[in-house]
Amino acid sequence: MSRVIFHKLQRLDEALNKILSLIRVMPTETIDIDSALNRVLAEDIYAPISLPPFDRSSVDGYAVRSSDIAMADEHRPVKLKIKGKIGVGMRPHISVDEGEAVEVDTGSAIPPGADSVIMEEFISRHDDELICYKNTSTGENIFHSGTDVMVGELVLTKGTRIGIKEITLLTSLGIDKVKVYRRPKVAIISTGKELIAPGYDYEEFKVYDSNGYMISAFLRELGCSIDILGIVPDDYDMLKSLISKASASHDFVITSGGTSAGEEDIVYHVLNDIGKIIVHGLMTRPGKPTVVAIVNGKLVIGLPGHPVSAFMILNALVRPIILKALGCTVYKTSSIKAKLSRKVPLRKGYLNIIPVALISDNGSFIAYPTFKGSGLISSIIPSDGYIEVSGNREYVPAGMEVEVKLFNNQLVLPDLTFIGSHCLVTDRILNELKREGFIVRGIYVGSLEGLKAVIRGEADISGIHLLDERTHEYNIPFIKMYGAEDSVVLIKGFKRTQGLVVKKGNPKSIKGLEDLLLQHNIRFVNRNKGSGTRILLDIKLKELCRKLNLNFNKVIRRLNGYSWEVFTHTAVALAIKHDKADVGMAIEYAASLMNLDFIPVATEEYDYVVPKRKLNRKPIQRFIKLLKALKDSISLPGVQFHADTGEIIEI
Amino acid sequence: MSRVIFHKLQRLDEALNKILSLIRVMPTETIDIDSALNRVLAEDIYAPISLPPFDRSSVDGYAVRSSDIAMADEHRPVKLKIKGKIGVGMRPHISVDEGEAVEVDTGSAIPPGADSVIMEEFISRHDDELICYKNTSTGENIFHSGTDVMVGELVLTKGTRIGIKEITLLTSLGIDKVKVYRRPKVAIISTGKELIAPGYDYEEFKVYDSNGYMISAFLRELGCSIDILGIVPDDYDMLKSLISKASASHDFVITSGGTSAGEEDIVYHVLNDIGKIIVHGLMTRPGKPTVVAIVNGKLVIGLPGHPVSAFMILNALVRPIILKALGCTVYKTSSIKAKLSRKVPLRKGYLNIIPVALISDNGSFIAYPTFKGSGLISSIIPSDGYIEVSGNREYVPAGMEVEVKLFNNQLVLPDLTFIGSHCLVTDRILNELKREGFIVRGIYVGSLEGLKAVIRGEADISGIHLLDERTHEYNIPFIKMYGAEDSVVLIKGFKRTQGLVVKKGNPKSIKGLEDLLLQHNIRFVNRNKGSGTRILLDIKLKELCRKLNLNFNKVIRRLNGYSWEVFTHTAVALAIKHDKADVGMAIEYAASLMNLDFIPVATEEYDYVVPKRKLNRKPIQRFIKLLKALKDSISLPGVQFHADTGEIIEI
Repeated sequence: MSRVIFHKLQRLDEALNKILSLIRVMPTETIDIDSALNRVLAEDIYAPISLPPFDRSSVDGYAVRSSDIAMADEHRPVKLKIKGKIGVGMRPHISVDEGEAVEVDTGSAIPPGADSVIMEEFISRHDDELICYKNTSTGENIFHSGTDVMVGELVLTKGTRIGIKEITLLTSLGIDKVKVYRRPKVAIISTGKELIAPGYDYEEFKVYDSNGYMISAFLRELGCSIDILGIVPDDYDMLKSLISKASASHDFVITSGGTSAGEEDIVYHVLNDIGKIIVHGLMTRPGKPTVVAIVNGKLVIGLPGHPVSAFMILNALVRPIILKALGCTVYKTSSIKAKLSRKVPLRKGYLNIIPVALISDNGSFIAYPTFKGSGLISSIIPSDGYIEVSGNREYVPAGMEVEVKLFNNQLVLPDLTFIGSHCLVTDRILNELKREGFIVRGIYVGSLEGLKAVIRGEADISGIHLLDERTHEYNIPFIKMYGAEDSVVLIKGFKRTQGLVVKKGNPKSIKGLEDLLLQHNIRFVNRNKGSGTRILLDIKLKELCRKLNLNFNKVIRRLNGYSWEVFTHTAVALAIKHDKADVGMAIEYAASLMNLDFIPVATEEYDYVVPKRKLNRKPIQRFIKLLKALKDSISLPGVQFHADTGEIIEI
Repeated sequence: MSRVIFHKLQRLDEALNKILSLIRVMPTETIDIDSALNRVLAEDIYAPISLPPFDRSSVDGYAVRSSDIAMADEHRPVKLKIKGKIGVGMRPHISVDEGEAVEVDTGSAIPPGADSVIMEEFISRHDDELICYKNTSTGENIFHSGTDVMVGELVLTKGTRIGIKEITLLTSLGIDKVKVYRRPKVAIISTGKELIAPGYDYEEFKVYDSNGYMISAFLRELGCSIDILGIVPDDYDMLKSLISKASASHDFVITSGGTSAGEEDIVYHVLNDIGKIIVHGLMTRPGKPTVVAIVNGKLVIGLPGHPVSAFMILNALVRPIILKALGCTVYKTSSIKAKLSRKVPLRKGYLNIIPVALISDNGSFIAYPTFKGSGLISSIIPSDGYIEVSGNREYVPAGMEVEVKLFNNQLVLPDLTFIGSHCLVTDRILNELKREGFIVRGIYVGSLEGLKAVIRGEADISGIHLLDERTHEYNIPFIKMYGAEDSVVLIKGFKRTQGLVVKKGNPKSIKGLEDLLLQHNIRFVNRNKGSGTRILLDIKLKELCRKLNLNFNKVIRRLNGYSWEVFTHTAVALAIKHDKADVGMAIEYAASLMNLDFIPVATEEYDYVVPKRKLNRKPIQRFIKLLKALKDSISLPGVQFHADTGEIIEI
């Protein structure tokens, strides 16, 4: 079979509307209220009784006639005769006539004749004599019948998701069984000869099937009942037979993989042969290789194989379909308005679906794009939701207001967002904050982006190590360069040693940066562009090239692994530890933690930057305290604390 | 037993810290990843493999050496020899030497020798000859091994709640079983002789036990396994025996009711006799009658009987306790900063726990207090979360910034918030919007509060019927009075008839408002203060009093039910329909819907008000369309549409 071209890509909204028009709502079933949490109501509920069901006292006190005590105050108290007591749950068998009162508890029925309740703190009592030091107005301290809900009132409508508050309301009305829509039964199939099931030993050049479990978790959370049918290699007959059977026994079938033109588009071929194709290719990025068909009267959705693409299409396309089948009237998730933190390039002609992390900034929100590529799940792991932008322009500008659609309505905002340069000392402090119960998010984009994020108010704190080559001063010149002296605060960090990390015993006998340029059998692992460590490496290599009269660009092209970028010092050290590379640049602390050898190259000043207005926040103050405690308690390899570590430095 | 005084009320934070120090984390169990959704991880997870596990192509194309095609462009394409193909999942058995290329698919392993992939769209191919029209840079279109996760890296920490993204990450790493904390087993007991179980026939002056089910749903959502043990009347021996047994067989016991001083504080007495009291009374409102004790080494929490109090204490006290037992490191829910919509009076000396509804206003949030009383569940039904304010002052001022703690991290924001006067025509339109999938919230506070809510930007739309007694003009004079001519827009509504609703056949022979003043055997149902209907009624009654030379204040005190306030026209009509009252004031449409008789009193202009900047929003435009459609399609009893209904009126 040759590569398939998607001839007629469809717009997401058009495809969705077409599919929704084909979806029938599930049949109904009646279940106990105690198992109804998160199910969808299949009937309108009219109140069988009023709430409160009768006039009841809202306080502990005495039911009185307000006209009897209209003139009462502290100087001229009025005496009433106590006729008895109505306890909670009792029929109000005593009436209150002129000059009389009846004792009531919070929740007691109001006896006939009384029109108000005087609270305990405004009376004194001697045997049957009640002395009132205050008047009451009609209705005072009475919850009247029907104030919450009037008998016969429509209280919940068909299509409502039953949450804790709905269960409280229904049981308050005496309802113990509800009609709900049956859970859709969904079969999940993963396709691809490259897949191995989690739990099996890893085989080189294969990938574990995470899609099956991701789809399962996603649909369970929506309220589906799931059968994971496992992995089918790209075998036409097996897939055909499995989809046929699954579509007969289930309400939906969802596959992943085998839909891309680059693979043999096997899912499309099977669906085209045994069913009716509705969608073959979406005009979205990611998510283009999505196939939808009807087989045996059931909807079969073929998701792309990349986990990130599959996840975005689950959210943008599958969620509303399942919600309609579940009987919900609202198909969408909540969205939050936010400002885009940076310019995002768009794929022309496509609807761009971009995962973003949300950062709360003084009551408003910033959306931080996390997309790195559909093959990388770190595109979605730190994200809270996504934005949809049509690709009728080259890019979305920074600062644009966007609508962030939340994954699953869940909003868990960090107490502290660190954006900046990765450092293991920072990691230690952030992990301690996590253990103390703070929600902490670390985004490692390098020093310069971190500083900008603090200036723009996106980050609560950043760690930076930026050398001004002119003055040989660290960090402060950059704060001044951005004119941020008045809006940010520099907190003194520490000196740390950068260098080459090599295997224990240094089997390749690497002595310094020269070996990167001269030795040819070396496998290198690099840090990401924009990180301070990468900048330092390039500066040092360029110096060396000038000295040795070499061409920098040629040298780095020859350096095996120069283009392999990882995002943390830990990742560099781990790559060497696990023999993926022979050498990489990282801080001494990382080498020491992994028991690797280390060749020092330079020392640098790593400091923290905080927006001035956020300095007094609890997590920031706690961060500073932990930094100071670290300085006093232990010595870390390659880390030199200063006398003023943790102090605010005059800029 | 006499009423119990809480001698030593405890601060919420002190009580919580004391209890948390006593809580042990649940033992662990190992479960399949597919059943791990929402469970809490009991181990740190280090990556057993890297992600991606090998260098892979991110596109369909050809793996090349960038140095071979460094000079290629559209005018001087470079030819390479295609040596073969590496499919997805295949071992890269062919190497790329000088002048060579190897075909790859998205996800294929990069063959040795190649340092980049040229995309299909920049080549042409003739048999084994590849013509490249573009150069590549090293690393282009390659996802390097370890970019997502490096083998050995700490990817998830103990205490993490396992969500969809965590399942995706774990299975990508090949992990199919995880160690999690066991679900806490919780026994739930409701106490009170006034309680009947949902599903049983209603008995007068009793209330249905909703607490048991509310607590069950709340704890299920957190991840507990639940046994509802049912209702125990206020019987010391029964309760003692049940709590003893439950504390032996369960990890936690939660009771509700029977903790208040006004009742006999039976839960306290039982717990004091068989266990050790930790908390007896909280310095919170609501929630004061909360009792906590250790019995058989297990925590027993006695919640207040009022559902609203119980719900607030579940959120403020029980949630963090359960989360600690569940092994979570983060005990709290998400919070959102918002501005308080109105002044809220505080209970002095207490921590005030106030439920609020959230309104999204252009990216920021407004918190709208919904508390009406702990006996009224409508205090919590429309709320999204709560604020905690210490009662060291008389009130919280309007506009103050508050931190709203979300119930369960769920954020479902309405597309359209209507705040204003209740009208059945409005109801019709709002219900239609709900059917169309909009999330709609209606808050009925009367015309004047509605107008103010629109002016402050809290409401997206309001319905008002406000008569200026001087000019006899409706609505517009009030907009001018608040100086809002430029910020709000008036949309023409309709004329509607207000009057007295009576039973079919008018058994009490009520002819008009005079009967309210003169007849003594009449049961009245009133509308809430601030509603336009209430204002109209009082104006009309005062006019009549002047005419008949009666004292208005005396007259209304005599009027049976004048203090019974309900919030909607429907509630008034239902009260009469179900013989709770003989007469009430409402619009003709309500009477007609319930098949009741109606005596007209006045007609009035009911119009809509919208903040000018929100006019073009989709739900508002749809609202206006539906209003116009209603005008053209049907006639509603007592409703007269105008030629310009749905049009914007010049103010």
